[in-house]
Amino acid sequence: MTTRMIILNGGSSAGKSGIVRCLQAVLPDPWPAFGCDSFVDALPARMRASDEGITFAADGGVSVGAEFRALEAAWREGVVAMARAGAKVIIDDVFLGGVESQQRWQKALGGLAVLWVGVRCESAVAAAREVARGDRVQGMAASQAEVVHEGVFYDLEVDTTHTESMVCARTIAAHVS
Amino acid sequence: MTTRMIILNGGSSAGKSGIVRCLQAVLPDPWPAFGCDSFVDALPARMRASDEGITFAADGGVSVGAEFRALEAAWREGVVAMARAGAKVIIDDVFLGGVESQQRWQKALGGLAVLWVGVRCESAVAAAREVARGDRVQGMAASQAEVVHEGVFYDLEVDTTHTESMVCARTIAAHVS
Amino acid sequence: MTTRMIILNGGSSAGKSGIVRCLQAVLPDPWPAFGCDSFVDALPARMRASDEGITFAADGGVSVGAEFRALEAAWREGVVAMARAGAKVIIDDVFLGGVESQQRWQKALGGLAVLWVGVRCESAVAAAREVARGDRVQGMAASQAEVVHEGVFYDLEVDTTHTESMVCARTIAAHVS
Amino acid sequence: MTTRMIILNGGSSAGKSGIVRCLQAVLPDPWPAFGCDSFVDALPARMRASDEGITFAADGGVSVGAEFRALEAAWREGVVAMARAGAKVIIDDVFLGGVESQQRWQKALGGLAVLWVGVRCESAVAAAREVARGDRVQGMAASQAEVVHEGVFYDLEVDTTHTESMVCARTIAAHVS
Repeated sequence: MTTRMIILNGGSSAGKSGIVRCLQAVLPDPWPAFGCDSFVDALPARMRASDEGITFAADGGVSVGAEFRALEAAWREGVVAMARAGAKVIIDDVFLGGVESQQRWQKALGGLAVLWVGVRCESAVAAAREVARGDRVQGMAASQAEVVHEGVFYDLEVDTTHTESMVCARTIAAHVS
Repeated sequence: MTTRMIILNGGSSAGKSGIVRCLQAVLPDPWPAFGCDSFVDALPARMRASDEGITFAADGGVSVGAEFRALEAAWREGVVAMARAGAKVIIDDVFLGGVESQQRWQKALGGLAVLWVGVRCESAVAAAREVARGDRVQGMAASQAEVVHEGVFYDLEVDTTHTESMVCARTIAAHVS
Repeated sequence: MTTRMIILNGGSSAGKSGIVRCLQAVLPDPWPAFGCDSFVDALPARMRASDEGITFAADGGVSVGAEFRALEAAWREGVVAMARAGAKVIIDDVFLGGVESQQRWQKALGGLAVLWVGVRCESAVAAAREVARGDRVQGMAASQAEVVHEGVFYDLEVDTTHTESMVCARTIAAHVS
Repeated sequence: MTTRMIILNGGSSAGKSGIVRCLQAVLPDPWPAFGCDSFVDALPARMRASDEGITFAADGGVSVGAEFRALEAAWREGVVAMARAGAKVIIDDVFLGGVESQQRWQKALGGLAVLWVGVRCESAVAAAREVARGDRVQGMAASQAEVVHEGVFYDLEVDTTHTESMVCARTIAAHVS
């Protein structure tokens, strides 16, 4: 069955975006890539600082409200429709709810052929990379490193702690059918 | 009929993005906004410099190839599916093909209730604003100012030449039902 | 006397950056441009959220502490030294202290030939443009619109309320000797 | 002798910016950081595509012209003056001319106490990270990896090929006196 979508899940600063760009470079077909970050950027500014929307606490905690969830569900429907219309799509996401987040995707996907990829990184290393990149609230990496993987099923997992983005991308690409 | 999508069309540097952010601020519901720029950003880097993808000439000309068109069509299907799933969505686009670009949207939309908005700006003013923003190839504004509107039908048009983004946004918001 | 530096002062969202880019385009010599924003970006992340550094309140208020002031004074010395070494330099700044901020520059400048430019914008218009640009804390434009000009001397003033950046830039360029 | 400036030199995508942000986090004093990138960004747009300014070839080659060199020399004078005025300053640079670039800094520095740091990364690894970051012309990393270090003297060298930015930063910080 031809892979129609690749969904990467991992905590903040685990290295998902770098892997995505390498994947886009090594996959022979042109795969557009969308992420939960691009969805958040698409929201009205007021929702990025509202209990109904999404809030980023000073300690790196992230909470989302009912309006956010409703729009996110519609966004997932849109992404799946894009894939059904013929585009091969890469998604990078942060499963704040662990397996529940995966189930939300599965519900939207129907039977669409997806490659599930876990992107791991040791918490302390991700936290240090969070400092190095300089554009994230400190604490997000550590608080998300483990919880996003709880109960989640993967076709394969990569770990960026000691492996370069490009090497992870080649491993993933080898699993795309 | 409740407006489910707002599609703004205008040339580069006509002021679409500013209007979109103001619209998001003045509309009572939370409308996520997506643009052709975000779609281009989602493509593999190699497609942003390829005849099959999208090329930006030194004089501001923009050409797109067959692969780009195929993925863009799937992207439009995804956007419409998101709206059908319950999100109210704002799109800002540049109809490089004029009325043909609009027809591609209409085909994807089926009967979905859309507010069509033309965003105009005098060519010379848009060209000067292109210099002021500093992040666009010079010449795009002038080359797109007129051609993107050719044969296109609108529910309303705004002109940013002498009118602020917020004022344009309030005018548009008043037409949302 | 040949103008060696152009210092623009105005509140947030008054349109300084756009004017600077247009100035760089219309001035025949190559003028590098630096702003208080680039100085703030150069600081350690922890100083951008510290009483000793610079803090941005939720209502748009900006406060700076002793460490910030000390580093900013050294930065001004550096900018002036660059101009003395032969570069013609454009600065865009926000005189949070009004005339006191100008006096700090004058102390650093010695007798260097400067063109002082006030960039004004009606408070309500600047506040609406703050929404349109979408990357600033709301309230900064309104809270700074008047106070930054208090007691400040200018060689010329421009007002972006009804005048395009490029037109302002040409007016300023005509005063460069 | 108290270290007044830290100058990091390394090729594109060797990891300088990440190390700089970690250095800013671990050093007890607040060190502002400036880089050759911020200087290039300060130039008029037309100089970023001109033989007199700086040009980026499609293969990653970078050439600079006479006007660029003159302004860069003035910029170095300004940076050193900032340090003389009391700020401790971090610079990240790409010594396109190898030891000649270092000599230009030495001439500007006079006897100011500097810590010279070489930032190395295996060419193939830097080239892969260039793909992962996605915002650089491909080929820059490989073409600069060795040449920027030719004949250059360092107080210490770090290598990001197998060492995290934060670990490199701690090593450097231990050499700051």
